[in-house]
Amino acid sequence: MRILLINPNLTQAITDTVAHAARSAAAPGTEIVAVTGTFGPEVIASRAENAVAAHSALDLAAHHAGGCNAVVLGVSLDSGLGALREFLDIPVVGMSEAGLHVASLLGARIALVTFGARLVPLYEELVRGYGFAGHVIRVAALPFAPADAYTDPVRVRTGLAERCRDLVESDGAEAIVLAGAALAGIGDAIQREVPVPLVDGVKAAVPLAEGLVRLGLPKPRAGSLSHPGARATVGLSSALDALFSGKRFDPPTQ
Amino acid sequence: MRILLINPNLTQAITDTVAHAARSAAAPGTEIVAVTGTFGPEVIASRAENAVAAHSALDLAAHHAGGCNAVVLGVSLDSGLGALREFLDIPVVGMSEAGLHVASLLGARIALVTFGARLVPLYEELVRGYGFAGHVIRVAALPFAPADAYTDPVRVRTGLAERCRDLVESDGAEAIVLAGAALAGIGDAIQREVPVPLVDGVKAAVPLAEGLVRLGLPKPRAGSLSHPGARATVGLSSALDALFSGKRFDPPTQ
Amino acid sequence: MRILLINPNLTQAITDTVAHAARSAAAPGTEIVAVTGTFGPEVIASRAENAVAAHSALDLAAHHAGGCNAVVLGVSLDSGLGALREFLDIPVVGMSEAGLHVASLLGARIALVTFGARLVPLYEELVRGYGFAGHVIRVAALPFAPADAYTDPVRVRTGLAERCRDLVESDGAEAIVLAGAALAGIGDAIQREVPVPLVDGVKAAVPLAEGLVRLGLPKPRAGSLSHPGARATVGLSSALDALFSGKRFDPPTQ
Amino acid sequence: MRILLINPNLTQAITDTVAHAARSAAAPGTEIVAVTGTFGPEVIASRAENAVAAHSALDLAAHHAGGCNAVVLGVSLDSGLGALREFLDIPVVGMSEAGLHVASLLGARIALVTFGARLVPLYEELVRGYGFAGHVIRVAALPFAPADAYTDPVRVRTGLAERCRDLVESDGAEAIVLAGAALAGIGDAIQREVPVPLVDGVKAAVPLAEGLVRLGLPKPRAGSLSHPGARATVGLSSALDALFSGKRFDPPTQ
Amino acid sequence: MRILLINPNLTQAITDTVAHAARSAAAPGTEIVAVTGTFGPEVIASRAENAVAAHSALDLAAHHAGGCNAVVLGVSLDSGLGALREFLDIPVVGMSEAGLHVASLLGARIALVTFGARLVPLYEELVRGYGFAGHVIRVAALPFAPADAYTDPVRVRTGLAERCRDLVESDGAEAIVLAGAALAGIGDAIQREVPVPLVDGVKAAVPLAEGLVRLGLPKPRAGSLSHPGARATVGLSSALDALFSGKRFDPPTQ
Amino acid sequence: MRILLINPNLTQAITDTVAHAARSAAAPGTEIVAVTGTFGPEVIASRAENAVAAHSALDLAAHHAGGCNAVVLGVSLDSGLGALREFLDIPVVGMSEAGLHVASLLGARIALVTFGARLVPLYEELVRGYGFAGHVIRVAALPFAPADAYTDPVRVRTGLAERCRDLVESDGAEAIVLAGAALAGIGDAIQREVPVPLVDGVKAAVPLAEGLVRLGLPKPRAGSLSHPGARATVGLSSALDALFSGKRFDPPTQ
Repeated sequence: MRILLINPNLTQAITDTVAHAARSAAAPGTEIVAVTGTFGPEVIASRAENAVAAHSALDLAAHHAGGCNAVVLGVSLDSGLGALREFLDIPVVGMSEAGLHVASLLGARIALVTFGARLVPLYEELVRGYGFAGHVIRVAALPFAPADAYTDPVRVRTGLAERCRDLVESDGAEAIVLAGAALAGIGDAIQREVPVPLVDGVKAAVPLAEGLVRLGLPKPRAGSLSHPGARATVGLSSALDALFSGKRFDPPTQ
Repeated sequence: MRILLINPNLTQAITDTVAHAARSAAAPGTEIVAVTGTFGPEVIASRAENAVAAHSALDLAAHHAGGCNAVVLGVSLDSGLGALREFLDIPVVGMSEAGLHVASLLGARIALVTFGARLVPLYEELVRGYGFAGHVIRVAALPFAPADAYTDPVRVRTGLAERCRDLVESDGAEAIVLAGAALAGIGDAIQREVPVPLVDGVKAAVPLAEGLVRLGLPKPRAGSLSHPGARATVGLSSALDALFSGKRFDPPTQ
Repeated sequence: MRILLINPNLTQAITDTVAHAARSAAAPGTEIVAVTGTFGPEVIASRAENAVAAHSALDLAAHHAGGCNAVVLGVSLDSGLGALREFLDIPVVGMSEAGLHVASLLGARIALVTFGARLVPLYEELVRGYGFAGHVIRVAALPFAPADAYTDPVRVRTGLAERCRDLVESDGAEAIVLAGAALAGIGDAIQREVPVPLVDGVKAAVPLAEGLVRLGLPKPRAGSLSHPGARATVGLSSALDALFSGKRFDPPTQ
Repeated sequence: MRILLINPNLTQAITDTVAHAARSAAAPGTEIVAVTGTFGPEVIASRAENAVAAHSALDLAAHHAGGCNAVVLGVSLDSGLGALREFLDIPVVGMSEAGLHVASLLGARIALVTFGARLVPLYEELVRGYGFAGHVIRVAALPFAPADAYTDPVRVRTGLAERCRDLVESDGAEAIVLAGAALAGIGDAIQREVPVPLVDGVKAAVPLAEGLVRLGLPKPRAGSLSHPGARATVGLSSALDALFSGKRFDPPTQ
Repeated sequence: MRILLINPNLTQAITDTVAHAARSAAAPGTEIVAVTGTFGPEVIASRAENAVAAHSALDLAAHHAGGCNAVVLGVSLDSGLGALREFLDIPVVGMSEAGLHVASLLGARIALVTFGARLVPLYEELVRGYGFAGHVIRVAALPFAPADAYTDPVRVRTGLAERCRDLVESDGAEAIVLAGAALAGIGDAIQREVPVPLVDGVKAAVPLAEGLVRLGLPKPRAGSLSHPGARATVGLSSALDALFSGKRFDPPTQ
Repeated sequence: MRILLINPNLTQAITDTVAHAARSAAAPGTEIVAVTGTFGPEVIASRAENAVAAHSALDLAAHHAGGCNAVVLGVSLDSGLGALREFLDIPVVGMSEAGLHVASLLGARIALVTFGARLVPLYEELVRGYGFAGHVIRVAALPFAPADAYTDPVRVRTGLAERCRDLVESDGAEAIVLAGAALAGIGDAIQREVPVPLVDGVKAAVPLAEGLVRLGLPKPRAGSLSHPGARATVGLSSALDALFSGKRFDPPTQ
């Protein structure tokens, strides 16, 4: 089975991080094909970057989804998730979406941790949109930027572990989603120091995607996630224009 | 006062329709500057088109917001609304958002009518995201495509009036939002036949935008709608890249 | 255009305060006609005072709505809002309702500040009733009484600015509604000290009312806000009895 | 024990109806003191009538609560409920509130039936405000006016029984609240024809009020339902002015 | 009237505590028949104990409900409430359910206090399931175990009073439900020290049950709480098997 | 990997059905160990049967969870889910829970179909409890009993397919969960006739359980799903008593 892992920003280091995490969670025989955005923002940490990243994610899918059985979005705002699900005939799973689903199978009260206070409302909007508002008790901000995970990893790990313990003790969190592609893989390093499961979105997304492929359920042929049919566009890449024009990818046999 | 009216799809006829509606609702002295997308989808009636349209709306704002006092989004999915509000220093109002606000000042139970069943969940997501879920009793689909409003306007008007009367009688609607740029202006023609107010999103947005300009409140300098600061991008138009790089437009004195 | 500004309590100083704020937000050519209650409570800061104030607001409308194009309720509990909207043929806007609508166009997370802890649940009930519960993150109480705004304005301003900054820093507020007629106009004085917009309910209500007048939408002729028809009463003022008996005011041409 | 039953409208026949129902549900030794409004609307079937009725209910309590152990509101919109609860030192129970509490002890999905479609949104607002929105599956309108219960009782009974059966079969109602003072007592007559309990609000309110008296819990001395202290008023009845001025009634020993 | 008070755990001391509280709230002429579980957990303070206690509660009802007019569940997780209500023809009231109903008739913002942090989510789930989520502002944990109420009652009373005062001052609680069978009766001892009513679940349940008996409403004959008809079982007590097999108890005349 | 599939009722045919479905969805190398209840109800189609089934499910786990890596509940009311998750150190997944998670990854509006109208409220309670209320548009009842799936499978298939098509066309369902152990496996047979994915709960649960095992996240050591420690019981099977007494199973290495 081949899973396309899309990082719609331009930072190869983040792609490498999420690809490493994805591979560590993949079943034997699952290949992770990781791709990085070719236009748009270097990192995705604002509403405007998220908006352009959705276009970028669609563009990457148009170029690379052929020959893949599923897509995982390796961007923690799940940029473009609905659009990809609508346009592709294969399962699409967002990393924060996956983290929330897995966390809700493990704990009754979920917290989500991310980089920086200005992203908190965006994750709250995701949480509400996905329907997890009743279970997510807090979206908490780390006082770090994503880049700190690369430049000062020890400080980020220590700060993250402390924040997580506080979410357990003061807020009663029973499972914690680590939201932020740059946090991928860090959970393993600090899990021992935190008494509740730390759910890595990318790692959670891989078995969900594999499971959906195995179930072999058809994509809806009615409603808002069915394929809208051929649509005319101007000024997009030829690959994305072809996707809008109605090109369909046949997934390979597993 | 000058209001930038953004239609992020490529169809000039829709721009003309929303511009006409906007002008009919503008105060004396308000100039409506209407612009049409230069890349992306011809029409916006799917999740994927909406995703690219958000990029297109940002791009149009980057080119045309200079010298304007406010922005109105003339696309009924309010594509890119949060991103624009974050990046611009002037008020930004979406047309469906505006329609819902105005409707809630006129009736206790709101219905929203749009083109085609596949868009119903997208408007339901908007309604929930804006916080109007408790007041919107139904998002109803007309059995028409947006293009029908141009090719068979009589049938659309008749069908719309019938559907609206049914929403009043069977569902208890007390105000109805007409969602769909192609419906702009049609409300006037059939208002007489429907016993509750028909709220045109574009027309509702113009006085809201004017009012926000008049109130002169500052944009947030903290939180998810404050300006994120200079951000690096690749492959965007030079105008949009400049906006990401931190260029700020000073609105003209009214 | 003429807007009737109703203060249903008996305190002329509050009427003057809200009238001053309303005029500062009115368009050129809009006249603000401010009236004060003739019976009922001196101030409105309890459930019982609010109940009688609703009667008082209806009575004031019955006496003064003739010749006006819209009504703004200059009482922060929006006393009698639904009843006025039902009985009058012209738009009616409550000041806290307006503050919440405007705030939600400016910030993703809204706080509301009022005088005294005992009013917090009443504003929470308003917020829920208007459908803003998903966006209002906190209703916060100032440790002052309304009268302090007149007797010790410096202390109120300083305390308000501090509380607002705390709501931004600790609660993540992105826009703040100042609820309390006695706070009208204070926002301007301290806006510079707070990094998110401070929304004055009365000032917000005026352009909303003007916009509704301009849109010229009809009042619902069905449902809970349509006119109930002639109703018999006993013991009310002759003006209010006439309103109940079915008297209708024709708004003047703008 | 003495319970004051307040009908804040002017129609003695309705007072008689609710008093009869209340007495049928009272424990031996409980006296029902039923009073009728002295000013305001003849019937209460609109938002404006409800607003004035809240004042009327306060006035009746000011005149008659002395010597009583509890108050039951015999008006199905529970007009003035919060204000009475705040001002009086004895328990206050609204009839629709009581109907909803009792129904939720008997069935998992509750319906509420009332007179006329224009009242449906008002009851929906009550239901939401009381927190029963998750359990009330439908507020249904009878095609009758309250007066029909007196002039054409057979037709009302037949129509009510039919509507109730339909709510069970089509909507899955497991308990039905009869909202409307004029419906008081009718439930008994048709209970046999409907397979789920028909909850009469007035009858439900009496044992709730008796139970609260028996529990002897103190009224809150903090928060929005504590007594606000002496408040100045103008133009109210001397009894109501005394209540605002801080007069407290000592309930009799049971 | 005879009320069966079911304590489905094995601890006679808890049965005695709840029976004492129940009797103190019963009307003259009401007999409280208190029974203790014969199998299952000694105390109920986990999800697993709660699951087995539901079976135990059904078993106790099967043995003892004959000759009773109503059932009160004297276990603060209301174990087996829905199952009992479905199987018995007499009213069934849970103690925490009752506490929440009574509290909501007394205060606008409700808090609930229980033993130990690990039970907080279980009560939050009850609160949501009963529909009180909009009114319950906090489920607070005492740093005590239920047994402390017997071994160190002074410390529990002092700690409880402090926590309750804090819930009033910091959280704005207007009524507080004491959840925990071992807390039954403690409210009286500390009510004087807390400015809002302390609602004892068992004491609240008794007059609700008496009221339901007095109202004499039939049990639903349709829906999820109607009797499911005769059902085959294996390995249950003969009394419970008879209940599943369709045995019905006729309540005695009051 | 070994997954314990628990059917807590007494009907071997249902165990066979869910085991067959589970095996069809299992990865190579996953062994499904299916067990049937030894006491309690023959089928589970009422609140009382569900209550006893939770005890039965715990008992089955106590006997059979040793040597297993995960548990799947093969009963569509997910009887005992929270209790099992609390007591076991291995992942536990309910079949309806799993169906809802998978459906929400495939469609924006979810319907759930079950046997008989009296179960509708129970599934609505599950849906709300799991947090899917915003996405589940309808819980629909088939006019069949579970046994019909064995005695008249053609009629059940035909009726199910029709109902599902209607849920797509009339209600806008984009994914449908088949709730009812007796429906396991039927989805495949009719998927071709329905334009949206039919999600079989048991089949959905297996890859979720496998994924959780692969992720290797620890069970919470704090909160309501952590192990409560040794608890005393009376009258339970020795295996279940051992589980309550603190016995822990070490899952085998995968």
